[in-house]
Amino acid sequence: MNIKKMMAQEKVQPFLLQARYGIEKESQRVTLAGDLVHTDHPQNVGDRSFHPYIQTDFAETQLELITPVTESVDEVLAYLEAVHDVAQRSMNEDEMMWPFSMPPALPEKEEDIQIAKLERHADVLYRRYLAREYGKRKQMVSGIHFNFEYGLDLVHQLFLAQAEETSLETFKTRLYMKIARNFLRYRWLLTYLFGASPLSEERYFDEEDRPKEPVRSIRTSHYGYVNKPDVQVSYESLTRYSEDLAENVAQGRLSEEKEFYAPIRMRGGKKVADLFHTGIRYVELRNIDLNPFDRVGIDADEIEFIHLFMLYLLWTEEKLSADEWVAEGNRISDAVSLEHPAEPTAYLAEGQEIFAEMLEMIDELDLAGKELVKSYQAWLEHPEETLAAKILALDEAEGQAVVATKLGRKFYDQAHAHPYQLAGFQEMELSTQNLLFDAIQKGIETEVLDRQDQFVKLQHGAHQELVKNGNMTSKDTYIAPLLMANKTVTKTVLARAGFRVPEGETFGSIETAKKAYPRFAQKAFVIKPKSTNFGLGITIFKGTTSINDFNAGLTLAFGEDSEVIIEEFMPGTEYRFFVIDQKVQAVLLRIPANVIGDGQRTIESLVAEKNADPLRGNNHRSPLEKIQLGEIEKLMLKGQGLQIDSVPEKGQQVFLRENSNVSTGGDSIDVTDETHESYKQLAIDAVASLGAAISGIDLIIPDIHKPYETKADYGIIEANFNPMMHMHIYPYAGKSRRLTLDVLRFLYPEMTI
Amino acid sequence: MNIKKMMAQEKVQPFLLQARYGIEKESQRVTLAGDLVHTDHPQNVGDRSFHPYIQTDFAETQLELITPVTESVDEVLAYLEAVHDVAQRSMNEDEMMWPFSMPPALPEKEEDIQIAKLERHADVLYRRYLAREYGKRKQMVSGIHFNFEYGLDLVHQLFLAQAEETSLETFKTRLYMKIARNFLRYRWLLTYLFGASPLSEERYFDEEDRPKEPVRSIRTSHYGYVNKPDVQVSYESLTRYSEDLAENVAQGRLSEEKEFYAPIRMRGGKKVADLFHTGIRYVELRNIDLNPFDRVGIDADEIEFIHLFMLYLLWTEEKLSADEWVAEGNRISDAVSLEHPAEPTAYLAEGQEIFAEMLEMIDELDLAGKELVKSYQAWLEHPEETLAAKILALDEAEGQAVVATKLGRKFYDQAHAHPYQLAGFQEMELSTQNLLFDAIQKGIETEVLDRQDQFVKLQHGAHQELVKNGNMTSKDTYIAPLLMANKTVTKTVLARAGFRVPEGETFGSIETAKKAYPRFAQKAFVIKPKSTNFGLGITIFKGTTSINDFNAGLTLAFGEDSEVIIEEFMPGTEYRFFVIDQKVQAVLLRIPANVIGDGQRTIESLVAEKNADPLRGNNHRSPLEKIQLGEIEKLMLKGQGLQIDSVPEKGQQVFLRENSNVSTGGDSIDVTDETHESYKQLAIDAVASLGAAISGIDLIIPDIHKPYETKADYGIIEANFNPMMHMHIYPYAGKSRRLTLDVLRFLYPEMTI
Repeated sequence: MNIKKMMAQEKVQPFLLQARYGIEKESQRVTLAGDLVHTDHPQNVGDRSFHPYIQTDFAETQLELITPVTESVDEVLAYLEAVHDVAQRSMNEDEMMWPFSMPPALPEKEEDIQIAKLERHADVLYRRYLAREYGKRKQMVSGIHFNFEYGLDLVHQLFLAQAEETSLETFKTRLYMKIARNFLRYRWLLTYLFGASPLSEERYFDEEDRPKEPVRSIRTSHYGYVNKPDVQVSYESLTRYSEDLAENVAQGRLSEEKEFYAPIRMRGGKKVADLFHTGIRYVELRNIDLNPFDRVGIDADEIEFIHLFMLYLLWTEEKLSADEWVAEGNRISDAVSLEHPAEPTAYLAEGQEIFAEMLEMIDELDLAGKELVKSYQAWLEHPEETLAAKILALDEAEGQAVVATKLGRKFYDQAHAHPYQLAGFQEMELSTQNLLFDAIQKGIETEVLDRQDQFVKLQHGAHQELVKNGNMTSKDTYIAPLLMANKTVTKTVLARAGFRVPEGETFGSIETAKKAYPRFAQKAFVIKPKSTNFGLGITIFKGTTSINDFNAGLTLAFGEDSEVIIEEFMPGTEYRFFVIDQKVQAVLLRIPANVIGDGQRTIESLVAEKNADPLRGNNHRSPLEKIQLGEIEKLMLKGQGLQIDSVPEKGQQVFLRENSNVSTGGDSIDVTDETHESYKQLAIDAVASLGAAISGIDLIIPDIHKPYETKADYGIIEANFNPMMHMHIYPYAGKSRRLTLDVLRFLYPEMTI
Repeated sequence: MNIKKMMAQEKVQPFLLQARYGIEKESQRVTLAGDLVHTDHPQNVGDRSFHPYIQTDFAETQLELITPVTESVDEVLAYLEAVHDVAQRSMNEDEMMWPFSMPPALPEKEEDIQIAKLERHADVLYRRYLAREYGKRKQMVSGIHFNFEYGLDLVHQLFLAQAEETSLETFKTRLYMKIARNFLRYRWLLTYLFGASPLSEERYFDEEDRPKEPVRSIRTSHYGYVNKPDVQVSYESLTRYSEDLAENVAQGRLSEEKEFYAPIRMRGGKKVADLFHTGIRYVELRNIDLNPFDRVGIDADEIEFIHLFMLYLLWTEEKLSADEWVAEGNRISDAVSLEHPAEPTAYLAEGQEIFAEMLEMIDELDLAGKELVKSYQAWLEHPEETLAAKILALDEAEGQAVVATKLGRKFYDQAHAHPYQLAGFQEMELSTQNLLFDAIQKGIETEVLDRQDQFVKLQHGAHQELVKNGNMTSKDTYIAPLLMANKTVTKTVLARAGFRVPEGETFGSIETAKKAYPRFAQKAFVIKPKSTNFGLGITIFKGTTSINDFNAGLTLAFGEDSEVIIEEFMPGTEYRFFVIDQKVQAVLLRIPANVIGDGQRTIESLVAEKNADPLRGNNHRSPLEKIQLGEIEKLMLKGQGLQIDSVPEKGQQVFLRENSNVSTGGDSIDVTDETHESYKQLAIDAVASLGAAISGIDLIIPDIHKPYETKADYGIIEANFNPMMHMHIYPYAGKSRRLTLDVLRFLYPEMTI
């Protein structure tokens, strides 16, 4: 089987870089001062017994963050970023993640290290066993577990390119066994480049047998968390590997298979024995230290390099028998791990050889990534570029613990800087980002089916739901949103059901509009251009109106637009009721863009101050929009005899817009708790009469505190399908209403979230 | 109470022409030869016990067509037209409606007149009683019952314009009692103008007491179907009216209230006594003969005139005491009814007075309709213009029965000319027209909420449903159509669920596309411009493809579009499966616009012949589209070495389009029955995996007769929400599938339709 030739075949070539990735990353929870916490796993991340993203490893303080399996580096990092945001924001406010593989200073008494409080007794028992066997301190080390799978098409094409193996499963197993051996042989190179545990903090080692000098990686050396030396396993074949593992368990050297801490694990079934049926499906690389300079512990370059390294392991031939090859690898790995980070490696020559071969492979197979490989190649002769050396340099300047605390704090700040965003998904709508956040937090599996289209798949157990734009779901019928989209029909249906909607009519000419005078003369009504942005052309008539005033109002309005609406005027304030599943989860008051004077500063400066709020941004990338000072705002000021350099009096509220939309700089104020229940019931009933499950319904209410008695106490302006959620979640003032969580609760009533 | 002044008030004025209308119209069913039928009420119009639109009157042969209450003349006529279309097309093919009020020749034996076979025994008993009391023959006369209600705003404004009555209900009752008296007094004018029963056919009269000469209206005269002379009722007040009616019943002169056949009935409650609580809500005018020159028995001018006449009755003062006034009216009415149609009326002077006053009212109140009133005014001095005179003239030429048969046949042909349309709603989408047809036929109440938006409300009992565009309903979830709208995500979801979808990719440059060669080289695939209308730039590769051929295909495709799709080629034919409620109700094969040669005619002439099919039209107004002979078709012909004046050989099928869309002249062929059940199950399962209730799913299938065995036997192209229905209902060839009825069955499982 000439794998080099196989890989070079034209039909294999397009699939060479096809792969699937998944990452698990451990982190110790620490205080902002860098001390190990004493708190339990965050409560609001839901149930650890099934959580697909946020788990605990050995200790209660040790988070394990898990990505789903993805088909691109961007995607796996997006998920890792997202899960980080969720985990960090789910922790106590004074807690953060320790960015290093080596734990912070450990408690003096080993019993103060709290084993993870897992639900399943077997899980706890296993950890107690580990604590007895290896000591708790050793378990406190963290790292990256990198799951890697060659693309199915790639494996299939390689399979077709040979004749020795007739079963695809056997072929795959043979492939991955080779990878495993080569990985074990050459993994020292990853340790050289990415090893990042040069020093231990206090009380990691409780005995004298420890490195006396800084090293590249305590974690991957024999000082790390490794099996006892008598546990030996052959990688010659899956059969031998499996037999040896079984023997180790039978002899009591291992309590069970999973106690075998190999730097690479063959995966595919629940147990090793399953691999005989399924073939090895992927491998788990376990020797990667946390990169403390990246908040998720690994970066895209590192992943791309590992990917090319994995291809190289496939490409290059083994040079010794299986067991010798692996033994040599293990020996070199331990040696390199224990080299001084600032010194060149003793295996420089072999390193040069590997890089030369990798570059040769890239050339021969016409692969991308040459520059990346070259840049890492340069580190060989510049050990100061390696992660361990960089950490060491910082440690010499101010001490590793200080560095770790600073880096941790930087990442903590990053996670909290834009609480309304979800890292990795920031280009999606805010509502979808919030929904994804909540789903990840509560352990609902998420998959973005189409980023641009805001199409998300959720899954919990067998229960699958699709969600578009945050709240377009299977809970609504097809017809209800179509009804709400037609404002006229909506009014008809609401009026038939006995709700009060403003009567109104649109006129295309002033002549026909004038004839409507008698119908409105005795009513309160408003004349307005059909499209108006800033109140121009609007006249409100509140009682008996003379024909002259009526006609004057029409002239004004027709001066602004060729179509004019005459509509019953409903006195009161407009509120948005967010109704979901027959409950009002939020009531919001929106007021037009405004500033409040202090008697000293200009309007321009007051606007600048208000815009400095981190919740305000542009183009719907933030919950609130910055107030503009454009033509419309200036006209609006002019109407009040003001300019942008006017200085309003102390306490004077100056409006810069007529319309109250949040999208034009308006303020959103949550008034859910102040709103009288009777209006909430009214909103629920109105939405029910439209047959809708989720709706943002706008009501005009004169006094929201007073119970609703007659139809004069309200009017329904419109009902909106796919209503905005982020303005409720991040209001300008008032309480946040986590509507995305309500959506999830509606979709998954079987979960207690 | 100076009603003239009240009506002239500025605030009353805008509402003067506001009104609500409802029409009931009786018709005898006859054969196409004009003989009374012996068949039962059409079976497919559903259950008479609740049918809101199509009922039977006295006899089994006598249809009663009922419109809902509407707020405009256009609307009430639209409904009457629609109900006519439905009734006519629901009858046996050799039956039609007799267009005259007077019935066709009646059976020799009275027992051969079949009383309506109604479900409720009480209804049958009542008809038996009527048969005994009045004889069956008299009951066979037909007419229009016109329900008229002054607009609520009008009544309310009039109420506000006076001070005598303090209760709106009492005021309304007083208003309508006045109308009733004035109507009874002046109704002779309607008989003069619109009386249309000058002659009887054989055996309508079974005794000698009958008009010896032609008259204006047998039906409204004392020869018509009227109460016995001893039944007298006062219209002085609602109280007297009610007491007198009760007395007549108590004395056995009437079996029950409804036996009182007044030319005007006060309506509002179930019984007259209810009117004291509700007030009179509207009146029912019962003296209007069928206008045989209009297929629905009444036209817009007649309704508009009656409306103005009703306003006039409100406006004009009574000139005698109530009982005298009514008695005088009854006397004149009978006299005018029995005048010779071609002669001027004896009441010409009073007629002129009424018209003069009506015109005065129109002027004073600034109402529309002056020209209309003047045109009817002219009939006073031209009795030959009246309906009765026109009928008589035709009768003299060829006999009334022949005239009636010809007119009936004309209306029959009209109803059958465009079976895919529904009169009154022709500007709506065909699917909605078909849905409305079926709903009316099966007795589901329909209301069009928005014609342009194709928004329909359906109601049966308390069960209301909204439908948009024919099949967008509450049965689908909101998310399923959104999913189907995203073709990429649809493919993903289908593929995950284990269905076969063509693999493919879109390329934006020839360079990147060229790199995909190895992935397709061994497959069957197609290279095509992203947008293509007539096959230009498409290349299909069916096996092993050389790189040169591949690149040539790309060059061709990129010559047509800047984006090119390379997609797995699935051999077979595309079929549309219409899935609803987990059933496949139709399978359709669409083939591109084509003609089949006869060895003699040119393509142009063959196209013209094919386009003559009444099912073919333009702009989706018909189930099939006419084949065009534009640039695209000419290019397509050119590609086959043909021109529009080429003469194809006998049997040669010439395609004029590449695409098979019905909208570009393609043929639709129903193949539901030939399709193997296994593919239907596949379509059902695929639609279920999308969570959709209604979908048109397109499958590629090599052999639709052979059971599906492996994934190679099909591929799913796409799933469509809101799928077209009319192409299944009116296919070019094959069986019609009434999908609109399936929609109704899905929405109303409680109905057996």
